[in-house]
Amino acid sequence: MDDRKILNPWGEDLIEDYKRLIKKFGISDFKEIKPYYPNPNHLIRRDIVFGHRGFKLVLNSIIKKRKFNVLSGIKPSGPFHLGTLTTAWEIVDFQKQGGNTFYCIADVEAYEDNGIPIKDSFETAVDNVADILALGLDYKKAYIYRQSSEYRVKDLAIEFSRGVTLNMLKAIYGLREFGLYISAMIQVGDILLPQLEDFGGPAPTVIPVGVDQDPHIRLTRDIAKKFKKYNFVPPAATYHKLMRGLDGSDKMSKRNPMSYFTLNEDPQSIRKKIMNAFTGGRNSAAEQRELGGQPHRCNIYDLYKFHFILDDNELKKIYQECINGDILCGECKKIAIDKILNFIEKHNKKKEKFIDIAREILK
Amino acid sequence: MDDRKILNPWGEDLIEDYKRLIKKFGISDFKEIKPYYPNPNHLIRRDIVFGHRGFKLVLNSIIKKRKFNVLSGIKPSGPFHLGTLTTAWEIVDFQKQGGNTFYCIADVEAYEDNGIPIKDSFETAVDNVADILALGLDYKKAYIYRQSSEYRVKDLAIEFSRGVTLNMLKAIYGLREFGLYISAMIQVGDILLPQLEDFGGPAPTVIPVGVDQDPHIRLTRDIAKKFKKYNFVPPAATYHKLMRGLDGSDKMSKRNPMSYFTLNEDPQSIRKKIMNAFTGGRNSAAEQRELGGQPHRCNIYDLYKFHFILDDNELKKIYQECINGDILCGECKKIAIDKILNFIEKHNKKKEKFIDIAREILK
Repeated sequence: MDDRKILNPWGEDLIEDYKRLIKKFGISDFKEIKPYYPNPNHLIRRDIVFGHRGFKLVLNSIIKKRKFNVLSGIKPSGPFHLGTLTTAWEIVDFQKQGGNTFYCIADVEAYEDNGIPIKDSFETAVDNVADILALGLDYKKAYIYRQSSEYRVKDLAIEFSRGVTLNMLKAIYGLREFGLYISAMIQVGDILLPQLEDFGGPAPTVIPVGVDQDPHIRLTRDIAKKFKKYNFVPPAATYHKLMRGLDGSDKMSKRNPMSYFTLNEDPQSIRKKIMNAFTGGRNSAAEQRELGGQPHRCNIYDLYKFHFILDDNELKKIYQECINGDILCGECKKIAIDKILNFIEKHNKKKEKFIDIAREILK
Repeated sequence: MDDRKILNPWGEDLIEDYKRLIKKFGISDFKEIKPYYPNPNHLIRRDIVFGHRGFKLVLNSIIKKRKFNVLSGIKPSGPFHLGTLTTAWEIVDFQKQGGNTFYCIADVEAYEDNGIPIKDSFETAVDNVADILALGLDYKKAYIYRQSSEYRVKDLAIEFSRGVTLNMLKAIYGLREFGLYISAMIQVGDILLPQLEDFGGPAPTVIPVGVDQDPHIRLTRDIAKKFKKYNFVPPAATYHKLMRGLDGSDKMSKRNPMSYFTLNEDPQSIRKKIMNAFTGGRNSAAEQRELGGQPHRCNIYDLYKFHFILDDNELKKIYQECINGDILCGECKKIAIDKILNFIEKHNKKKEKFIDIAREILK
């Protein structure tokens, strides 16, 4: 497996050995700072957030209740799915920890990468923003914007273009089309936007991302150091693990609809995907009662761990039942379906109230 | 000589064989349409405008007094010089012919290409605009803008980026830094700006340029055809010859200050450059009286032809005196100095009045 390919934010490649990534790309191990993190969320507690770059400065701000920023975003090319949900938990939590919050609708990226015209992605963007608000983001304390309307971001992208060479872009992203490089530069602009004087100037900033987004972070940190006149604090990142495909594939992928579900999906479709999901079960019920299940290999367990059981004791209980062989996969899947459909039903009720607000914000 | 190198808008390469360029790059010969051009200016009359792409549509609009646009611009990296002056005559004349006029201050290009920060090029831009107004551009009937402030141009650049590949850019411009490619895309945005609905929608548009700018024109015509939703009329260009260096070098170049002068230059310095200029003179006065001078090889004659003798009869007279050996180079240079310093003195008086207006326009 080629490591460069692993860390491809636009790709569909395998993510499997996080320790190796830490070593190879110089990502710092989150475990070293975890003990100092006040009130860690479930993703941190469960080592789903496994790595970081430069996060100590942000952690220091959290501990000392000093100013820091958090920025995340979504490409409005489709509904919120299980992957975007991980980042959503993180940004909502960083906001609660006191971060000045920026949420970017990457509609220019959706255009450059997927060919979706800006005006066509608007309604998807409204839907995505309603999701993040329903998940707990306080829009009154957040700057939510579309790339296409945020000229400061585009201006930064154009300015920073003088700081990169084609060779740098090729080394980081591989040989890509020109529009994707532009879109990468615009993301650099997004990440540094919170540190402009308009938003109070340089300050520690964290970008919570899936580890596949590391190339953007590395490029942005390089550029932040290069453009000294801004006095940017090199932006930090937390890296979370990526969920495997529900169907047993290595990664959730839009190209493979059985590998994931979205928050907008029909309950029957979600039910079916979960019933078909790949688990850590044994060859027979008898064998499983004897040997126990294998939650570390189980996509249902991952659903609990990432999203749908936030209470650690409850998670431990089901883990124990699984490895003891006290619960079989069929039963466990039914529990999962109940929990998930219940979550989604409640979520959608909350979300309804935010649709108009979201549209107003993005206008 | 490598033809790709010739047509390099950022380069410092030789331009010598215009007929070959016409053949090799599919530039159309201007002579074919010249007879139909009403009231041709001195550049057209003298075949300094030697080629075009797609200009028949614009010519048709001129003849039938229909709508057309003209766009030109300047990179605010220094004062108006003899090269920019050629384009200036053209845009002023196209405006008089009835063209909706756009004048672009390419401050993003000055940044990407020369590293001049946008704020630092502002005063140069003011000076440049005062020059073009003093040369006769009617600012009340023109849209004069800075690239850095014209978000429609930047948005077009970002949109069109999806329509080009790195290979296209490499084929047209050679292997360049990323920022220069961005700057090329922004120029594409400039050239198509006049055809946006905000300015009345698709219409024939001419870009008068030195032939070294042909790569931009070709790229823009490709893109105009590709983005069908805009219904762009592929922009036309007129191509003018480039002046040789006054000092006998192949081309005027900022790297070689003896090769050109600017309109802001100290009269003593201009005088000196003209006195040192390379002419079509013979080895001795006696020989010259016998054989006559060689105006087609003479930079002083070029100064007359491009800029400083607009009356054809006066030009013919001095040509005749030269080839007859009736006038020697020293005398001719004195005439040139008088004409040029007189021109510049008058120009600067007019220009003074436009400085505040220019600053107001660019604010």
